[in-house]
Parts: sequence; structure tokens; C-alpha cells
Amino acid sequence: MAMVCLSDFEAYAKKYLPKIAWDYFAAGADDCTTRDENILAYKRIRFRPRMLRDVSVMDIRTKILGSEISFPVGIAPTGFHQLAWPDGEKSTARAARAMNTCYIASTYSTCTLEEISAAAPGGLRWFQLYIHRNRAASQQLVQRAEALGFQGLVLTADLPYTGKRRDDVRNGFRLPPHMKVKNLERAFEVCKMSLLDPSITWNDIYWLRSLTHLPIIIKGILTREDAELAVRHGVQAIIVSNHGGRQLDEGPATIDALAEVVEAVRGRVEVYVDGGIRKGSDVLKALALGAKCVFIGRPALWGLAYKGEEGLQDVLRILQDEFRLSMALAG
Amino acid sequence: MAMVCLSDFEAYAKKYLPKIAWDYFAAGADDCTTRDENILAYKRIRFRPRMLRDVSVMDIRTKILGSEISFPVGIAPTGFHQLAWPDGEKSTARAARAMNTCYIASTYSTCTLEEISAAAPGGLRWFQLYIHRNRAASQQLVQRAEALGFQGLVLTADLPYTGKRRDDVRNGFRLPPHMKVKNLERAFEVCKMSLLDPSITWNDIYWLRSLTHLPIIIKGILTREDAELAVRHGVQAIIVSNHGGRQLDEGPATIDALAEVVEAVRGRVEVYVDGGIRKGSDVLKALALGAKCVFIGRPALWGLAYKGEEGLQDVLRILQDEFRLSMALAG
Amino acid sequence: MAMVCLSDFEAYAKKYLPKIAWDYFAAGADDCTTRDENILAYKRIRFRPRMLRDVSVMDIRTKILGSEISFPVGIAPTGFHQLAWPDGEKSTARAARAMNTCYIASTYSTCTLEEISAAAPGGLRWFQLYIHRNRAASQQLVQRAEALGFQGLVLTADLPYTGKRRDDVRNGFRLPPHMKVKNLERAFEVCKMSLLDPSITWNDIYWLRSLTHLPIIIKGILTREDAELAVRHGVQAIIVSNHGGRQLDEGPATIDALAEVVEAVRGRVEVYVDGGIRKGSDVLKALALGAKCVFIGRPALWGLAYKGEEGLQDVLRILQDEFRLSMALAG
Amino acid sequence: MAMVCLSDFEAYAKKYLPKIAWDYFAAGADDCTTRDENILAYKRIRFRPRMLRDVSVMDIRTKILGSEISFPVGIAPTGFHQLAWPDGEKSTARAARAMNTCYIASTYSTCTLEEISAAAPGGLRWFQLYIHRNRAASQQLVQRAEALGFQGLVLTADLPYTGKRRDDVRNGFRLPPHMKVKNLERAFEVCKMSLLDPSITWNDIYWLRSLTHLPIIIKGILTREDAELAVRHGVQAIIVSNHGGRQLDEGPATIDALAEVVEAVRGRVEVYVDGGIRKGSDVLKALALGAKCVFIGRPALWGLAYKGEEGLQDVLRILQDEFRLSMALAG
Repeated sequence: MAMVCLSDFEAYAKKYLPKIAWDYFAAGADDCTTRDENILAYKRIRFRPRMLRDVSVMDIRTKILGSEISFPVGIAPTGFHQLAWPDGEKSTARAARAMNTCYIASTYSTCTLEEISAAAPGGLRWFQLYIHRNRAASQQLVQRAEALGFQGLVLTADLPYTGKRRDDVRNGFRLPPHMKVKNLERAFEVCKMSLLDPSITWNDIYWLRSLTHLPIIIKGILTREDAELAVRHGVQAIIVSNHGGRQLDEGPATIDALAEVVEAVRGRVEVYVDGGIRKGSDVLKALALGAKCVFIGRPALWGLAYKGEEGLQDVLRILQDEFRLSMALAG
Repeated sequence: MAMVCLSDFEAYAKKYLPKIAWDYFAAGADDCTTRDENILAYKRIRFRPRMLRDVSVMDIRTKILGSEISFPVGIAPTGFHQLAWPDGEKSTARAARAMNTCYIASTYSTCTLEEISAAAPGGLRWFQLYIHRNRAASQQLVQRAEALGFQGLVLTADLPYTGKRRDDVRNGFRLPPHMKVKNLERAFEVCKMSLLDPSITWNDIYWLRSLTHLPIIIKGILTREDAELAVRHGVQAIIVSNHGGRQLDEGPATIDALAEVVEAVRGRVEVYVDGGIRKGSDVLKALALGAKCVFIGRPALWGLAYKGEEGLQDVLRILQDEFRLSMALAG
Repeated sequence: MAMVCLSDFEAYAKKYLPKIAWDYFAAGADDCTTRDENILAYKRIRFRPRMLRDVSVMDIRTKILGSEISFPVGIAPTGFHQLAWPDGEKSTARAARAMNTCYIASTYSTCTLEEISAAAPGGLRWFQLYIHRNRAASQQLVQRAEALGFQGLVLTADLPYTGKRRDDVRNGFRLPPHMKVKNLERAFEVCKMSLLDPSITWNDIYWLRSLTHLPIIIKGILTREDAELAVRHGVQAIIVSNHGGRQLDEGPATIDALAEVVEAVRGRVEVYVDGGIRKGSDVLKALALGAKCVFIGRPALWGLAYKGEEGLQDVLRILQDEFRLSMALAG
Repeated sequence: MAMVCLSDFEAYAKKYLPKIAWDYFAAGADDCTTRDENILAYKRIRFRPRMLRDVSVMDIRTKILGSEISFPVGIAPTGFHQLAWPDGEKSTARAARAMNTCYIASTYSTCTLEEISAAAPGGLRWFQLYIHRNRAASQQLVQRAEALGFQGLVLTADLPYTGKRRDDVRNGFRLPPHMKVKNLERAFEVCKMSLLDPSITWNDIYWLRSLTHLPIIIKGILTREDAELAVRHGVQAIIVSNHGGRQLDEGPATIDALAEVVEAVRGRVEVYVDGGIRKGSDVLKALALGAKCVFIGRPALWGLAYKGEEGLQDVLRILQDEFRLSMALAG
């Protein structure tokens, strides 16, 4: 079977992953309305294509927080990559480096930050953080990441509690015994999601700021009001995200929320978006609406499920080709 | 099978109830457009989720007409609970008390008001009333309810005649011989729905007022004009309702009508809504649009059909958990 | 099988009529968009139901051009009733008289006007006319109708040529040999639809006026401009119609066109509507939007196909009951 | 099977063409959204039909760039007609001449311009041009076309690179060995699409102008901005086109873009449209929105696939009859 577009990787992953893993990656909260809206909202946006422009040479590189990447698509933080491919996040890190783009490693990785760093030295990586009730543990994680050369800290703001994903409840989802949330193992004796701190507020950004010199990127913003608060609290960038539709169902699609966030921010910080990117033209739409870069979540997992780091590179390369082509055709 | 969300109870009830009972509970008038719109209208409403608010402690209790309930979801009046579970309304009353919420018992109960009261002493209950051609009979019912400690009187305004529910006509729906509309048995020799009085008007509120000290809640209001009339005629609360889409087809969804009623009422009386609540986030939406509380109809029957009072408690507990989670995630 | 609503008659007719007859009655032009829109447009219109009005006594009689009918639903002109039931238009006439409503007999009847008159003496009937190239023939028809006691003349304005109904072309539709377009037989040696005159204009209303004392009702108006022209040319009433979606595809649904016609007419002539009426509440919507009466086409044929005049009476009675109920429930 | 409407030809072609050829003709870019929108957008446009106008005589002839055609439907440029019928573009040319309309021959024809000319001497033909990196080759083609009596030069502006048509990639689409892109064979040793020049700009119109006395028609314009540029650069006509949805997906439907182009042009040049024409009433809609003429792409290929030049004439004749009928019925 030829892998022509991202849906081909999705079909492959659905066919070959264990049901419990597929369901976990595919899950959306409640009725999955927002998960699906993320995709449908892109389809509702129409180009106004312009003709007869010289598109023989196109430069699709960009910079995010000062680091150059080969094209404006990075890897969003998602958990448990070993569910998709034995080498897990190590493969993800290698593929991202090979394609010269940014990989945001999740707190809920099945490899340690050290393993990830060692797998692809020199790659551009950010670290995604949840704030735990045990602040010392979070502090340790931040400092480990900084010491290992991670170049940004992504604070997830939309998970005070975990959303209700019905299939995971039905499946009684849990990691297989041979996989571990290794980053937390070292820091906690017991690690459960319920250890996440639901009392965190904007002021905790200052606490985080005090721990690290890394830029802070806040992930999960969907309104102009929160975008303004994020800027005021001194973050360096915003990822417009609804956690792939896995948290609050029936909020806005991310591409619909993007415009209002971009407008509120007025260029003071960089704005990215994740959720629903399935084609190169989606990337172009996000950029046209003001995003500096997009991040892909599930498609990266499908790539891993297909052929590990090679599969993920295939996914990125297809997006890159499609993005370049849609730029040319849109003029 | 895990019971994860309300649809699971619906599927169970559809599978295990006798067809004639399922059809009766599920029925909508004519093409069932309004019945289905009640649900679809919720899906069209989008949240604007806010982040980084302290959601570690949330108080979801509320008060309706001065009585505290554990969360803003009560049991709407529906008829013939023995069709769903042998103990009928006695189970409903027990489940409502166990969950510390309000149960509106229907005139068309298959248990007497006395049996309902005895099944769950001390529970918060209101009594739903139709006005019959024989006013004395209605008067007796009101006075029985008041004497038994029911704390509110819900006057249904949208049933001068019964809506046309095609499946019921096809099935020749009637109660099985061993079930009776027991409340009316005592008062009438003959009891048929056609004894309902289609000539009642707003002035009959005054008549009702003269019979009882209980607060009067009017159920079935869908327009600002009628909301204003209700307030002027001295009711204590309004339930925005279209009778689950069982009366006039192709009127508005209740959640769509809610905003106009709330606006017209301007806080002078409490406003509730029923119809189409299937998830905790629906409750949150109704509250955000001005309802003080919502009431569930069919989901309560599905809960009964599943496991009697236990099943109904399951339904209420799921709604409660989902409501609390969606509050946290919406900030 | 219980006949509960008009769709039941439709299903029956589809099952038991010869395919060629069913296809002919069901046919719409081209993609059948307008045919289906006629129905869908009703579903998009929402009631604002009012409560607690005295609906114990309702008078649903009305007058059209001075003649009282038992409720505001008449029989629209459709051709070839013998395709639905052996007695053809004679049955239609009897059913209309039995229900005390108006029947518009088509030029393309399979019974003569004399047979129709004799079948139900004293019934309220109008005659539907196409203008033929041979004006003398049309004149004869008008004068026969007037002499037989028909009380109105309905001029069809939307058929300069016959619309393209694909199934009829595929089926090679033609009347079975034992049926005839009897009204034209007497007047013409050769009768084909192509004898209709595509050159007729508004001035031909004056010619028609000169032939008869009967009121002239124009059928097929869909715009305010044509409504104004109709009034200026002295017609007594307008039927908003798109010929059941059988002529120009992708014009407006009749219920959508009704409001603009009513507004243009400003009460100077009566306005009726046909197309898409399937429930009593559709009748109520049409009246609320300004129609004095509605006419049913296909549902009448389904009734005939079910049981001749009895079946058509069933259809009318169901509509009447539903109309009365929806009036009561809408307040 | 009766061939009643264009969909019948589509069904035939889908059934009888080799899959690789059908897929090639049917292909749209990416998700085929724009391809399908071209059709759906016509369905959203509604007529306002007028009655009682004299439609006994209708003249449906028109002139495009001074040449009379029998009705306002021409043949859009599409490649590889031998995939549909052995005689390829020769049959197309004969059918167009027989129906007295205009045929735009594609650069990617499987017959030479000379063969096409010889097949139907005297027919009205335009030549469609891509500009190649090798300008001399393009120049030769232009001059050959002019010498052969082609009367217009259609410059395709929307193909700096070929769109991504997934099925073609999956099928590994290429011409069968016995077919050749004959026009280019003579001029190039090597011919690949990648020889198209993606650096062309509006200024190249001047270069083209310098090569020929033929009128220049620019194809692929979708915005008012580009329409204005086209007029300023001296083209004689514009074809509003999105290449049948084969280039940039999720741009506008052509019929939706037409109005804005017509408005921008203000009559200074003729405007045509292609894409999505499936019925005679679509032609009428395009003309009502300001197009002087429409062009059909896939339907012409279906006609060829059915019966070569006869089949294409059938397609054109059906469109002509439907167009005339819809004009009459719309008044």
C-alpha cells in the first residue's frame, strides 16, 4: 500500500495497533465533538488563490523562539510513544532531528529525558510540563530538562483533571506492565495523574519563571482573555490547543480560536497551534491566520506506528511536500 | 458492559424494555423533530474555556425555591415508572433522596402519592399537576400532595390535548392490566386523559393559588411572552420545557428557548429547563444560559430500567461527575 | 398496517402502484431538488408555542372565494387519477364532497368534467386550465366547466413546456391504452401536451376573462413581481406553486415563496399555496404565513391509491385532526 | 440504458473505462473538496422563476470573441482524450464542429494540432497553452496553432506545479505506451510536466502577446485582484476556473468566484467559467451571474467514453435541450 497522505498512516495505525493503544491515541472527550471539529474547521476555511506569481523558488524555513527549523511543523507533546513503537520517544527524537524540526517531549514519555537526549544529540527539543502537587518534583524535572539542553518549557494549562474519554474508561486503559512513565519514576514513589495540581493559577507562571532560564510556552489557550493574561504573565509563546479534543468537549476548534488569540497578542509573543492538521494546506491556513508554526500530535503517532522514526519522517516529508505545493498553488 | 455515559443506559433500556414501553418513553410528536432538536441544540453551543483558575475546590450544590440540592439536576415528571421497573416511582423517590436532589412526581404515576412519600421519607419532592375537567378532583390531589409534604406544585401548561405520537398509535399503547394510574383511581370512577381540561387559561393560576400554600412552578413555557405572563400571574418558578418533544412538534429546542425566557424574567422568578440533557456539560451550558437547575426525563427512566433505584443513582452520579469535571475544565 | 400519518399512505402507494404510475406521480424535474425542498422548507420553520389559552372550542372552517369549506385544505389539480384508482377523478370528487372541501379538477383528468360533476353533485369544484394553441378548444372547456357548475377557473402559468422528469423519460411514460385524457378527446382529434401554447402572456388573462363569469385563480406564482402582475391583471386569487417541483428545478420552495407573495398582494386577492404539505402542522404554518387555504397534490393520490374515495377521506381526516391538534398545542 | 442526463454518461464512463483512466479524469486534488464544491455550489443557487412570458421563440446562440456558437457551451481543455476513445481529440473536434461550438484543444492532447485541424476543418477552435521552461518550444506551439487556424490562445495560469491527486499517485498514473503527448514530441526531446515553468508572472503575458495576433484568454482566475491584473495586462477574455478542482484544494467553487470576477471586470473583457456544469440550468445560472459562455470538461470526456464523437454530441445536445427548457421555465 502506497503511503500517499496522512490518512494512509491513520488507516495503517488503526489496523495494526492494539485496540487499547489505538483507542487511547484516538480518544476525544465525551462525544468527540471537539476532536472532530478540529479537522472540520480547517475544511470550512477557503483559499483565495492568486495566479502568475513566480513560485520557482520558495523558502519554507522558519524560526521559533530564535531556532531555525526546516519548515513550520513540529511534533506536539503526546504521551506513551512506546505504545506506538518499541523505541518510543527515542525514535521520535531521531525523526525530528533528521527532519530538522522541533520535538516537544511529554512529561508522560515512556523514555527518560536523558534517553531522549542521548538518542538524538543536538536536536531542537522542548519539554512539556504538568505541575504536580509535589512542586519539588516538577522543579526537578524542569532543571533536568534545562541541564539536558532542552530549549523551551511548555506548560500545559488545560489539564487540571483528565478529560473523560469513554473508550479509555471502557477499556480500563493503563500502560502495559513493561512500560513506565519513566521521568516520574525517578522523582516520585507513586505517580498518578491525580497528583496533578488542579489549584494552579496564572501566578504559578512566576514560580516557574523563577526555576529556569528557558523560555516558557503556554499550551492550551483558546480565548483572547487568556491570551492577554499569558502575555501579561510573561510567557514567551502560546500554543493554541484543546489537547486534541481530549479535555473539554464542545469548546472551539483550534483553528477557529487561533485568529482571536493572534489578534489579542498583537505580535508580542509567538503563537502556534496544534490539533486537526492533516494536510500541507492546513499548515498554510494556520500560517495565513497568524500562527508562526504548527504542531502535529496524532499524525506523528501514526508515523511511529507505521515504521518508527522512518515512518515519522515519511509523515513529516509528506506534510512538507504538500505545504510547499499548496504555497505554490495559492500564489 | 460498562455504564460510562448516559447513552449506555439508553442502549440498555432500548434492548431490554418491552417494545411498547420503550416506544412510549422514546416517543416524540409527529416527526420527532423537536425531540431530537432538544439534543442537537446543545451540541451547537460552544464553550469558551478558560485556563489556570484554581479548580481544586468546587461547590456544586444549589438551592431551588429555598431547598438545597446536591447538584443542579432534578428528576422531571414522567409517567408510568412501573413500565421501567417493578417498584416504579417508589424507586425513583429513593434514588432522588439518596442523591439529595428533587423529584417531581407525575400525576400519572403508577404509585400513589402516599406510597411515594412512604418510600423515601424526608426527600425533596414536588408534585406535577394536570387540571382536570372535574376541578374537585384536581383540588383533592393538590391538597393530598401538600398534606404529604410535597414542597412544590408543578402545573403542566402544554397538554390541553395529548400530542400525536405515531408509535403509540401504532402500538395501541395502554398500560398493562396490572398497572394503574393510582392517584386518579381514588378520585375518579373513570379516568381518561380526555378528562384534562383544554379550556384552562392563565386565570386558573389564581384558582390554584387559592387551593394551596405551596409554591407554584409552571412547566411548558417557551416564549418571552408567556414567561412575562407567568411572572405576572404570580408563579414562583418556570420550567422551560416542550414536554420532551412529545406535544407540538417543530417548536424550539428548550435550550434555545431558555435564553429568551431568562431575559424576559429578569430574575423575578427562578427558571429551570428540561429536555435534551445527556451530559454533564449540558448542565453547565444550561446554567451558563441562566437556568438555576435542570431536570432529566428519559435518562431517569433509562436508569430505572437498568437497575431501579441503583440504576437511577448511577445516572445521577455520572451526570454529577461529568458536571463537576466540565466546570473544572471550562474554568 | 395502521394508517397513522400521510407517510403511511405514501409507503403504501409506493408498494402497490405500478412502478410507472408511482414514478409519474413522484417525479420531480431534473435532480428533484425543488420537489424535496418543498418538504424540507416546512421543517425549517419553527413555531413559537403559546400556553394556557382556552382551546376547548376551535372553529377550523374557512371560506375561499366566498364558499365555505370544512377546513383549509383542498385538493390540488393533478392528472390521471385512474392511474391511482379505477374510478379516477369520480372518487376524488366524492371524497372532496364528503369532507366538504374544494376539489380542483385537472384538464388532464381521465374522467370527463361531466362524469366528475355527476359523481358528486353539489360539491365545490374548480376547473384547472391549460391554454392550448387551439384557443377555441380552451374556450369550449371553460364554458363546459362553467355550465357544469364549477365555481372557479384555475389557470396554470408554469407549464409553457413540460419539465424534464428523468424517470418518466426512462420509463417512456404514457397512459395505458384503456385510459384517455377524456376532456380533450371531445374537443381535439389529436391531443398532445405539445399543443400547449408557450406564447401565452399576462394579456391572455383578459381573453380568459372575456370567456367566463367565473373567478380566475392563477397557479404557479413564486415571486412578488408576478404576484403584483397577477393582481393588476384582475385575477381573483393566486396559488403559490412550483407544480410540485415538476417544472423548473432549483426554484424556491413554495412555503418560502409564500411570504413574499402575501406581502406583495397586501390582501387585494386571496393567496393559497400547494406543495410539500405532509402534516397538519404544515397547514398551520402556511396559514400563519398568510395563506387562506392550502392544496394537497401527491397525498391525495396516495389516498386514492390506498382505497379510492375512502382512502382520500382518510388522508383528509388525518390532516384535519392533526391541524386541529397543532392549533390547540400552538395556542 | 437510456442516456437521459449527464449523470448517465458519468455512470457509463465509470463502469467501462479502465480504472486508471477513470481515476485520472475524476481526480481532484487532496480531499477533492473543491472538485465536489464546484457542483454543490450550483445547487445552492436558486432561481426566481417568472411566469406568463412568451417563450415560444428563443434564440440561444451567442458570440465569443466575435465567433458565433450555437449555444453558450464549449469544450474545456482536458488532456489525453485517447484514454476515453481511440480517435481521441479528433473525435472531440468533430463533435464540436457538428454542434457548432468551440473546442479548446489542450497542450496535452494525444493527437497533434495538425490531426485535430484536419479532422474537422473549419471548426471553431482555441489552443490551450502551458509555458515551458524552454520558451522556444512554447513559441513554436503558439505559432503552429495560429498557422493551423486556431482562433484563440488559452493560457493556463493555475499550474506552476501539478496538484496532488492521490489516486493518480496510488495508481502510478502514466499514459499507456501506445499513446503520446504528440504536440510536445515534435518540439522536445524530453517532455515532462516538470518542464513547466513555475517562474512565470503577469509580465509573460506581454511576451506571449509579442508572439501572436491571436486573442489571449487567461484560464484559472478566481479573485477580483487577479481579474483586474488580467485586464490590465491586456488579455481578451478570462476563464474562471479551478482546473476542475485538480490543483489547489479548498479554494472557491468557480460559480461562487464568477460573480466577483464579473464585477471586477466591468465588461472590459469577456468572462467564461468552467467546472461543475452538469445540467442545462447550471448554464443558465452561470449566464445569469455574468458569464458569456461556459465550458465543460469531464462531461465531454464521459461523452467520448460512451460513443466517441456521437457520444459527445449526445452530451452537448442534452445540455442544449435542458438549457433551452430551463430558459423557458424560468421566464
